Formats: sequence, C-alpha cells, structure tokens
Amino acid sequence: MTHSTPLPVVAVTLGDPAGIGPELIARLLARHDMMALANVVLVGDEWLWEDGQAVAGLTVATQRVASLSEVRGRPHPNTPAFLPLQTIRPDQVTKAQTLAACGASVLQVLDLCMDATLAGHLDAITFAPLNKHAMKMAGLQHEDELHHFAQHLGVQGYFCEFNTLNGLWTSRISSHVPLKDVPLYLDQQRIMDAATLIYRSLQRNGNAAPRVAVAGFNPHNGDGGTCGREEIDVIQPAIAKLAAMGIPVLGPFPADTIFLKARDGELDAIVTMYHDQGQIAIKLMGFSQGVTVQGGLPIPITTPAHGTAFDIAGLGRANVDATANALRIACRMGAARLAEQTHPTPA
Amino acid sequence: MTHSTPLPVVAVTLGDPAGIGPELIARLLARHDMMALANVVLVGDEWLWEDGQAVAGLTVATQRVASLSEVRGRPHPNTPAFLPLQTIRPDQVTKAQTLAACGASVLQVLDLCMDATLAGHLDAITFAPLNKHAMKMAGLQHEDELHHFAQHLGVQGYFCEFNTLNGLWTSRISSHVPLKDVPLYLDQQRIMDAATLIYRSLQRNGNAAPRVAVAGFNPHNGDGGTCGREEIDVIQPAIAKLAAMGIPVLGPFPADTIFLKARDGELDAIVTMYHDQGQIAIKLMGFSQGVTVQGGLPIPITTPAHGTAFDIAGLGRANVDATANALRIACRMGAARLAEQTHPTPA
Repeated sequence: MTHSTPLPVVAVTLGDPAGIGPELIARLLARHDMMALANVVLVGDEWLWEDGQAVAGLTVATQRVASLSEVRGRPHPNTPAFLPLQTIRPDQVTKAQTLAACGASVLQVLDLCMDATLAGHLDAITFAPLNKHAMKMAGLQHEDELHHFAQHLGVQGYFCEFNTLNGLWTSRISSHVPLKDVPLYLDQQRIMDAATLIYRSLQRNGNAAPRVAVAGFNPHNGDGGTCGREEIDVIQPAIAKLAAMGIPVLGPFPADTIFLKARDGELDAIVTMYHDQGQIAIKLMGFSQGVTVQGGLPIPITTPAHGTAFDIAGLGRANVDATANALRIACRMGAARLAEQTHPTPA
Repeated sequence: MTHSTPLPVVAVTLGDPAGIGPELIARLLARHDMMALANVVLVGDEWLWEDGQAVAGLTVATQRVASLSEVRGRPHPNTPAFLPLQTIRPDQVTKAQTLAACGASVLQVLDLCMDATLAGHLDAITFAPLNKHAMKMAGLQHEDELHHFAQHLGVQGYFCEFNTLNGLWTSRISSHVPLKDVPLYLDQQRIMDAATLIYRSLQRNGNAAPRVAVAGFNPHNGDGGTCGREEIDVIQPAIAKLAAMGIPVLGPFPADTIFLKARDGELDAIVTMYHDQGQIAIKLMGFSQGVTVQGGLPIPITTPAHGTAFDIAGLGRANVDATANALRIACRMGAARLAEQTHPTPA
C-alpha cells in the first residue's frame, strides 16, 4: 500500500440535550487541531446542534452525510461530517431538567453509533455527558451506560471503566457496591483481568511499555500481614501470575502513597481495589480534566469524567478541556484499532 | 488579676536520636517568632542537642533549669529553657539505624514530660519524630505512642489521633485495622465520640464555631441506600443525636468530594470512617506540612506528621515547617488549657 495512513472514523454525540453537551461539542468541533486527528462525524439532532453553536457563540462548518457508512470514504475528512437525526423536538427539552425524552434521545443516538460500529463504519466514539437517571426513566435496563454498551455490542469478556487524568489511567476491581461487600470482589482473577485490560488499553493508546501498578487493600499495605492479609494472599500472587503471562505489574503499593508516585510521573496506570480508593485521589488531582474510557469493548468509547452540569447548562461557560481530552484518546485508540484491523498482528 | 496573661509551658523533645529530630528542634528553637508563643522548655540529652545544632548549623541560647517545676515561674520565658537529661550516650547512636537504646531514650524523655504534666508543670508537649519500632524494641507495650500516653496519663475516655493540614483537621473512626473489619467499627457512639472530640479540640485551638463534617462510608454516600445503608442507618442518626447535644456536624458527604469542600475552605474538620479514606486525601494535599495531634488526653500533645526520615538524618536538609506547625498548635491549645484552669468555666 502506498496510500497515507487512513484516519480513524470517530463519532461524536451531543449527550443529554438538557445539559452542557451541545455547547461543549460546538467548542470541540470548532478546534481545527482536534479535527486533524480523525475523520470525525457528529451524530445528533440538527436543531440541538444549532442550539449548541448558538450557546457557544460559534458557527462550525460540517459536511452533511446521509449514513455513517459514507464517512470513511469521504473526500475532506478534516472537516467534521454531520449525520442529522430526529430523536427529540425542541419543545420536549427544558435545560437543566432530568427528562425521559432526553434519556431516550441519548439511548437512540448511542445505539445507532453502536450498530454502525458492528457494521464496521466507526473506529471510536466520544459522547458528551449523559444523565443516567434520565436514561433509566427512558427504559435503560442496566446499572449504567457501560453495561448497556457491553450488552449491545455482545461483549462476553471482562470490561470496566477507566478513569484517566492527564497521563494517569485508573481502574478498579469493584465499583458501585457497598464498602462492606468490597472484600467479596477481591480475587486474583479480577485483579489479573483488570491489570491486563488497562495494560493492553494503554498500549492501544500509544504507550508500548505502560508502567501499571496495583494498589494495596489494607492500611499501610497490610503492614506485613498484621493489618490484613489480602496483599499477601491475593494481590501478590496475582502480580506473580501476571508477570508469568508477560504483563509486568508493579506493587502492591500502600493506597495512601501510590497516587504520590503517580503524581511524580512514576506510573502510567493504577488498578485500585475499590471505588473511593481511586476516586478520592483522582478528584483531588484535577477532576475537570478527567476522561472516562469504557474499557474492554470492541471499540474505544470515551467521555469527559464530569457530568451534565445542569447548574451552568445553556450559559456558554462550560469548559471543553475534558471533552477534548476524551476525543484525543478516542482518536489515538481508534487509530490503533484501525491499524490492527488493516495489518493484523500474527495470532 | 491585673497581670498579663501567663504563657503556657510547652515541652519540646528531640525525638529519636537517630533521626532528623535534633536538627529540626535546633531550627525550631532558633525562631524567635515561635519562642514568643509560649514558655518553651527543651527536654533531652545535652550532647544530642549540641549535635542537632551542629547539623543545623545554628547555635541557640537556652536557660538551663534543674527541674520542669522551675519553668513556669522563670523570669525570661521568651528564651527557651533547657532541662538536660542523660538518657543515651553518643556511642549508642548510629544515625539512620533503628536501635533499642534510641527507643528507650524516647520513652524515658516522654514519660518524664508526662509525669511533669500530671504534677501541673506543663500545658502542652511537642515531640520530634520517633520510631515506633525502636520503642517496641525498648519495651513499648502498646500498639503506638498514643496508647502509651493514654495509659500513662490515666485516660479513661475516648481518645484518638487527629491529622491536621493547614486549617483542616481530620480524625477517623477506625485506624490500623484490616479493611474487611472496618464495618465492625462503624457505630453511632464512635462517630459521636470522634465528632465531639474534634469539635471541642478545635475550640481549644481557637475556633469558637468549628465546621465539622462527617464523611460517608459507601461509594456516592450509599446512593440513597442502593449502594449500602450505613449512611442512613448509622451516620445520619449519629449526626441527629450530636445536633441534639449542641454539637452541630455537617454531612454525611460523599468521601470522594468531601475533601474538595475542605480544600475550598468550607470545612475545618472531617471525621473519616477508615484510615485510607482520610490518608489518601491528606497525603495528596500536602504531607510535608501536616501535624498529628493526640486528641482526648489531659494535655495537648503534637508532633509533625512525617517520620524520622532516616534517609536524610544528619544531613541538615530536614524541613522544619511541620514541626513549627506542631508547636504552634501546642501553644494555642496549651494557652486555652491554661486559661480554663485559671478561670474554669462553670460546670
């Protein structure tokens, strides 16, 4: 092949119509530096896209397409494509309200993107903030969007959410479960699955030799077994098995200092043992920049870590940094996926 | 009384002889601003004090006393007093080594200070970093120095360690216990005891109306009971009882955002539910400045939150900030204690 490397096709969605999503996406698509990273296609309602541009005070040129199947082959991929949909009417939306119609719109747009993924038309998706409660009002059957994605995409293997902040990626063995039940989720297989997935995902994001570490479970890493034995009985054996599989993983390190190592640039990823172990640190280290990556799906899906910010929705004050970071990761991971499919590595 | 307010008597100790304590105390006692806050008395071995000054590159004038009973009435309280002891010989100490002789020295100095407290000669104590393991080698019977203090001082009531950082104080319901056992420590009485103690201690530190908050236990504060019920069943009833007792306490707030409120200056204290919930945040927010306050004892005892720093002991590079913060708190709380004893509040 003598052609230049094809750009990955990355879909971008407007998120919950009542939140800051449409104005964020207007700011995002106005950035020429971002649009050079991928063949971006905006998927959503035309009136809502117009509204987002108006709130952001911007006009963004797009190339209209009639189907996501047209995007990969289009002639000028540095101008965003636009697939207009009709999922919700203006009179169904009130800014800053949790509405079933908004949740239904989000589900319809995302499902269409996932179907296009299964059909081979997309390499990655970045979605603007959605509102889980609105989606549940609209009939979402799962605890969150990640489980919906996994089911819709037919995922059988291990999947989990990564929280990323600047160079640091984190994942967790257990998530939204009562703290008293957290020990039930701590087993070698989950640690090995989580560490392997984040290691491979960072490789897809362009880091050939990611420095992945595992956090301890007990105070002071169990203090040699006097303050809990999970480090000795579960975590260390899992790390040894990972090493034997060719996945080098550091740790376990005490939970109250592992994030200092990360802040000092010594680590690329941390596998945490429960929700707040990672979230307390990540939120202190810079919540407004953070990105959530849905890991373990057949295509990368990213979104800013912050929510719909109903308190400032429609005011034109929303900060696009996290959304830009989300698109950047989607572009890198989408490019890696495209390269793998074009030149598959030997089995 | 027409006399000016008497200064509180605050003892300062050199900590573990093999660590950075002696050089830190030389830097501390050289600061005239600090010496104006209290009637400070240094308690320790003369050769070690000389050595600390030599490492720090300082010479500090002191007034020698023969007994701690002389300190309160001495004529020039702004120059530190010095009670020389003989607890350890130079040939028994090697810098950066964990030694039983060093642990024995620390215990002897602290016990002497506590006896002087019981005899009414001291209002507060600030000790330089000690080494728990060396103290255990020397015969310490308790899990840590706080339990030793409490027993030596005959404490019957609730006591616990506070971790303080700039304006923020934290305490915890459970400390060095396996994470799986943390739910066993979560009961209304412990929350009420901890919140009351930190509230009263902050008042003694000069804050008439401290803004004390309690952290939640489960991810997202239990999400209305769907992700754990401890917030509803234990924490909220404890807060209601505290309010009825005249101790206004805020919360529970989700553990992963409560420290953002504190960083924004909205809180003076946080009662955390387990060790790492607080320590992950405190260490990220600025470990080198932190102070440990031993709460619930008959006199305030403070120490820098950092340790003996064997890696830099004797090099003259130790940072005195946390030790100065520790002395500042001891002086304020010692002054409040002295005022209470001079003008007791009605029962």
